[in-house]
Amino acid sequence: MTRFVSTRNIRFLITEVFDAGALTAHPYYDRHTPKMFDMVIDEAVTLATQLMYPVLADMDRHPPVLENGQVKVHRAVKKFMAEFGKGGWIASGFPEAHGGEQIPLVIRSAVSFVFAASNYSAAAYPELTAGAAELITSFGSRHLIDTYVPPMLAGRWQGTMALTEPQAGSSLSDITTTAFQDAGGRFKIKGVKTFISAGDHDGVENVVHLMLARIENAPPGAKGISLFVVPKKRLDDKRNLVSNDVTTASIYHKLGYRGTPAAELSMGEKDNCFGWLIGEENKGLAHMFQMMNEARILVGLASCAIASAAYHAALEYAENRPQGRPVTRKDPLTEQVPIIAHADVKRMLLFQRSVIEGGLGLIMQCAMYADLIRVSAGKEKEGYQLLLDLLTPVAKAFPSEYGFLAASSAIQCFGGYGYCEDFPVEQYLRDIRIQAIHEGTTGIQGMDLLGRKLVMKNGRAGILLLKELDHTIQAAQPFSGLVPAAQALADAKQLLETVAGALLKIAGQGKIDAFLADATLFLEFFGLIVISWQWLIQGIAAEKALAASPSRKEERFYRGKLYAMHYFFRYELPKIHGLSVRLMDGDHLTLDMDPAYLTDY
Amino acid sequence: MTRFVSTRNIRFLITEVFDAGALTAHPYYDRHTPKMFDMVIDEAVTLATQLMYPVLADMDRHPPVLENGQVKVHRAVKKFMAEFGKGGWIASGFPEAHGGEQIPLVIRSAVSFVFAASNYSAAAYPELTAGAAELITSFGSRHLIDTYVPPMLAGRWQGTMALTEPQAGSSLSDITTTAFQDAGGRFKIKGVKTFISAGDHDGVENVVHLMLARIENAPPGAKGISLFVVPKKRLDDKRNLVSNDVTTASIYHKLGYRGTPAAELSMGEKDNCFGWLIGEENKGLAHMFQMMNEARILVGLASCAIASAAYHAALEYAENRPQGRPVTRKDPLTEQVPIIAHADVKRMLLFQRSVIEGGLGLIMQCAMYADLIRVSAGKEKEGYQLLLDLLTPVAKAFPSEYGFLAASSAIQCFGGYGYCEDFPVEQYLRDIRIQAIHEGTTGIQGMDLLGRKLVMKNGRAGILLLKELDHTIQAAQPFSGLVPAAQALADAKQLLETVAGALLKIAGQGKIDAFLADATLFLEFFGLIVISWQWLIQGIAAEKALAASPSRKEERFYRGKLYAMHYFFRYELPKIHGLSVRLMDGDHLTLDMDPAYLTDY
Repeated sequence: MTRFVSTRNIRFLITEVFDAGALTAHPYYDRHTPKMFDMVIDEAVTLATQLMYPVLADMDRHPPVLENGQVKVHRAVKKFMAEFGKGGWIASGFPEAHGGEQIPLVIRSAVSFVFAASNYSAAAYPELTAGAAELITSFGSRHLIDTYVPPMLAGRWQGTMALTEPQAGSSLSDITTTAFQDAGGRFKIKGVKTFISAGDHDGVENVVHLMLARIENAPPGAKGISLFVVPKKRLDDKRNLVSNDVTTASIYHKLGYRGTPAAELSMGEKDNCFGWLIGEENKGLAHMFQMMNEARILVGLASCAIASAAYHAALEYAENRPQGRPVTRKDPLTEQVPIIAHADVKRMLLFQRSVIEGGLGLIMQCAMYADLIRVSAGKEKEGYQLLLDLLTPVAKAFPSEYGFLAASSAIQCFGGYGYCEDFPVEQYLRDIRIQAIHEGTTGIQGMDLLGRKLVMKNGRAGILLLKELDHTIQAAQPFSGLVPAAQALADAKQLLETVAGALLKIAGQGKIDAFLADATLFLEFFGLIVISWQWLIQGIAAEKALAASPSRKEERFYRGKLYAMHYFFRYELPKIHGLSVRLMDGDHLTLDMDPAYLTDY
Repeated sequence: MTRFVSTRNIRFLITEVFDAGALTAHPYYDRHTPKMFDMVIDEAVTLATQLMYPVLADMDRHPPVLENGQVKVHRAVKKFMAEFGKGGWIASGFPEAHGGEQIPLVIRSAVSFVFAASNYSAAAYPELTAGAAELITSFGSRHLIDTYVPPMLAGRWQGTMALTEPQAGSSLSDITTTAFQDAGGRFKIKGVKTFISAGDHDGVENVVHLMLARIENAPPGAKGISLFVVPKKRLDDKRNLVSNDVTTASIYHKLGYRGTPAAELSMGEKDNCFGWLIGEENKGLAHMFQMMNEARILVGLASCAIASAAYHAALEYAENRPQGRPVTRKDPLTEQVPIIAHADVKRMLLFQRSVIEGGLGLIMQCAMYADLIRVSAGKEKEGYQLLLDLLTPVAKAFPSEYGFLAASSAIQCFGGYGYCEDFPVEQYLRDIRIQAIHEGTTGIQGMDLLGRKLVMKNGRAGILLLKELDHTIQAAQPFSGLVPAAQALADAKQLLETVAGALLKIAGQGKIDAFLADATLFLEFFGLIVISWQWLIQGIAAEKALAASPSRKEERFYRGKLYAMHYFFRYELPKIHGLSVRLMDGDHLTLDMDPAYLTDY
């Protein structure tokens, strides 16, 4: 059977590291049991294996086409959406009041990980639908909820996020799609949106866009943006679906992520497109960020997932491909060894594993914070929220950047075969490359982390995180095998305080451009330390399990886990030394340099 | 006009940095003048622009097909080969005695750079042919030279390197293709070769494989490998081309580099395949390494070239795409700025430029050493050879690894558009990914550098390189703007000696596996220092030019050059600190870890 995830590792994270079962003590989650969580994961693996993975390559080879104004996608999509609706997968995290099952996000994240690892393009359709439906339940009127949410959760209607415009990608404050007041909370919509994932397709009856637009005469910039529901087809008075004047102008031919169309949409070409306001006027960006923040974490999760699929392909190949001999035994008459015996191949596999499992740990951590926010109150709740806000850009960017390198490393394990379509790794490299771009580029995440999250509320989020690090460093002390890693994390924490302090001093002098010039590099620096923290948490769980005399098979898992942890501390964390040299450097050449110097003609 | 290279930078390297004109003082090169070198470059740019770049995307979209045993390639290939033959481009570096023009390698490298930047797949056909023909002239009999070389240099016959077999990629000592003695230096050949670039196609009349095989009963391993000419069609007694029983079994569908077929070839299925021995029996691997070493440098060159094309696309986009505002001026009523105004975009562009121009500098340096080897003698010649040998793995691996990151960075400059086929950068990312794999993976280059080149002849190559570094550090002293960079290089050199010393001590203890475990990381560490050295050389040339009061346009070029240099010193070189921490770490977890620990099922 093809493997694309380690279910053993998922169980390890859910049960041994994060103790998701403890959530069931809270009334909101009390209809679940830890055993049920396990069953959910197992079902997800079955569905992914039977339905999604088998069409991974076929969806890539037969991307969507636009015919007579209708986007046609792989016929499997219709089946996925029906199956995901019927099986309650889209609804699983929703409150019971909305037809959901109130499954904690930490479990749903594990499920999303499995789906994205099996077939990222396929997984995007239901994920987008769930996010859009959630936004409607959060800010929509009863009428809007009743109209849109049930068919979306049933997988009959697709949901999207419609933010980007041709002239406004990273700079959302410059969107120009306009909403003209009509009657009863209804608006006429005119404008163009681009790169809308699943923005149109024939696998569903309707497509529901959660769209940002400016109400006519709204204030300029971000303060004049509102959120609307703009369906492809609207219900007429007799509750029949009729065209809502949303036209698919084109779809993009992409490097990867080919199973999901990225559409350019034109609204109101016949002056007959209507949208319904969601939430407050001019608060659209803030509302949208509920979905966006979840989407960002899902991007990080999908990055770990695609890298996981690539890793398992590389691992299987490395175990079975004979090539070369140990450097200490060159005799050509002796048998070749499987390439996994070579130190450099083990290094590449450990790199991949450390990125995937470290990144997944961070995302599970974020999901736990989100679940705890729901069941806590006051200062505690606020603390979880701050930590979640702080870690969101890291959870998005670190896996998408390092996951790309991990997928490339998987290709390298295969050698020439990895460059060919005979193995899936070349597709994984193409699929994963979108992750550092969509839902906010890595540059945007860096600015968010340094320019917003670290300074908000007098830096309280950062202070809370340092406490979390201290807590973990302390918890590692009883395990002699972990002491060097704990010390390395303590040193890294010290360096983080030094570097952040130096940068904040620049900000304090009002030099905001200098403060933010290397925000992307600060994000990497910060990310390496955060992932190390997550690895130490996992190391503690593994040492605890080993102390309880597990079976030989289990022991192998825990020892492998510890090797991956040590790998991250000894090969990846040291990168902070180079980054800190750069971040503490007083020069600001990227600010100072006139862009004309790059032009030599 | 589409730009894929900076001709200003090529002139800078040839004339101001390496003074290639001085070569014409040597009799072997004395029919040339510096002005002629300039004309050659200009002609190459014209040919690349008019003939090769226009079919870049089309060759990618219409890859080779295998029909009835014949590989059919894009129809432009036939035109390229004819044009390259007619224009003397394949022959240009050959001695006049073989119909060539004795153009120095440093100039031919610049030409190869231009061709590969315009269309890497297209450039591969003539490059492979030139390399194969050169090998025949070096080791073949007069008869073989007369038979094969003229049609190859004329672009009528394709040349290939046929080394890899399905069971023997990185481990060449395990090849099994067998040569059975026939008569008159002729052998019957039986075996299978795979991943043979341009291994069969209909753009030429014949394909000439420079093939490694074992003569029956030869010693096992590398010491029993011989080199043969094995044509697709051989000449019969009447000098007609007849089949030589070389069958194309299949071609690969690849991530990129799609314009050039990678073929699996079967020799002697009808027991009617003949090959002709080149050079000495059982010395085939050493002979082949003449072509392989040049091919490795060409891989590095092509990496710089593809990254250059991606950079110029990203630069043009960044100059013209308005998006966002300076962080110090957020007012949404003000106009958006071109994204090149953002520090993070400048950082990404400087990263690309510093990799491309630093890498190209190293390759030009290697070419100069090769040219000087030809015209020098004794100790001097030996010194150049040692430096060339030492730097070859770096010139291959550094640009192929960092060039891949540069191409990915070019995509990032485009945002979502970079992920789409509307712009060429997604193809560049796919094309460049092969470079870290073919002609010896990065892992193989690391082993070559640390395990062979640094220790050969009592480490004399390394000592010579350190002297070169000292020389450059001294030469930088008169320029106050370069002193910090010179000091950084001096410090890096010190660190290199420390790290290399520590590793060689491990080797001295006989722990060869520990010595080589992180050879890939040592290669990166070493490469960062070598590229910094090249950047300082370029910085000195730029400072000298600035001191001579150039025109404003010229001043802009030199100031840009210095910014790129400072970028490399301040952002890339510091990575050696993290790498040195790793390389000096006493643990050897990739050696110690039982591979079974990676398996958790």
